[in-house]
Amino acid sequence: MPQLLHLDSSADLQHSHSRALTAAFADAWASGGSDHVVVHRDLHRDPLPHLADAALHLPTRLRPADAVVPPEAEALQQALIAELLASEVLLVGAPLYNYSMPSTLKAWIDHIHVPGLTSSFDVAAQPMAGRPAVIVTSRGASYDPGSATEGWDHGVPALELILGASLGMTVSVITTSLTLAETTPLFAEQLDRAREEFAAASAQAVELARRLA
Amino acid sequence: MPQLLHLDSSADLQHSHSRALTAAFADAWASGGSDHVVVHRDLHRDPLPHLADAALHLPTRLRPADAVVPPEAEALQQALIAELLASEVLLVGAPLYNYSMPSTLKAWIDHIHVPGLTSSFDVAAQPMAGRPAVIVTSRGASYDPGSATEGWDHGVPALELILGASLGMTVSVITTSLTLAETTPLFAEQLDRAREEFAAASAQAVELARRLA
Repeated sequence: MPQLLHLDSSADLQHSHSRALTAAFADAWASGGSDHVVVHRDLHRDPLPHLADAALHLPTRLRPADAVVPPEAEALQQALIAELLASEVLLVGAPLYNYSMPSTLKAWIDHIHVPGLTSSFDVAAQPMAGRPAVIVTSRGASYDPGSATEGWDHGVPALELILGASLGMTVSVITTSLTLAETTPLFAEQLDRAREEFAAASAQAVELARRLA
Repeated sequence: MPQLLHLDSSADLQHSHSRALTAAFADAWASGGSDHVVVHRDLHRDPLPHLADAALHLPTRLRPADAVVPPEAEALQQALIAELLASEVLLVGAPLYNYSMPSTLKAWIDHIHVPGLTSSFDVAAQPMAGRPAVIVTSRGASYDPGSATEGWDHGVPALELILGASLGMTVSVITTSLTLAETTPLFAEQLDRAREEFAAASAQAVELARRLA
């Protein structure tokens, strides 16, 4: 049974653009077959704890000799990694908060990226290599090439490094900008562009989901 | 009474380089006068919750009309902001985890950055403008200009944007690299460089602390 792991991390349960886009993707993917299973992990509603100990960044064989890791933290990490490894497709709702990813999503990344286990380090290891990862990102403002805020998005690049360069997944990015235009007068005059970008992102999500289903 | 707000976010309580450097800074700063007060907030030992609701990103006047924020989350945010505003100097221990800041530190950033309150947005507001912020960053590997991993550090740039561009603070960065060389055979041959960088960073921390005290 093909499995999609669908992560959401928006702290907005009412107006979230990233949640709307990941839902559209997941629905389109699920309609690809009656055997398609969607595992939905909502990192905001059911938050993970912060990483309990830095030793969890590495597999047991590479940890300092005096490392002591709480068993429940180790068990949680193993469960999160198993859930990822059981999934053919990864879908990540990743709104940009303060120029980087939400802490809820970072806590998941810090649990599942283990060099030497989920990415190559002292040994070759990329169990997720070649599988699709779809990052859905929404940003309150805009970060256009050539503008003063070009390069201010440090959320997507960090995710691309972990999911692409480290885990070896095939990463796609779906982006919608100026989401603040819906609710904040300061951005109101850019509402048309915001809605056009969201409509395009919605279509892109559905098209990509059908292709990957 | 001059106050230093000293943040640590390393998940390593035994071998942390960032903790050693922030401790050296805080000690040197405290010796600047008997009236110098250090407030130490350990974001790993006493972690903050993830941001409870996206509405907390904005002051009440700019939130969507239907926003409902838990009162305890609002109170926590106000307390964290008051603690920051009461501090002349901010010291941030910021190890690089998976190419971005630890989730514990991101949770603090997401609480204290409120456009229109702690940074300018619909109104001019930069209550921390001109005050020093010292980022102490430790990285397991190296990210040298011209190397394959140049630009892979998305922790410090995101912190510089919030503390510098948004809050208007005067940001200094103290960096030590290759901290994995102490414990990981894969990096062992770079141990000399790692120790030299750490010694230089320690001296820089003490010198800067004395200047800012």
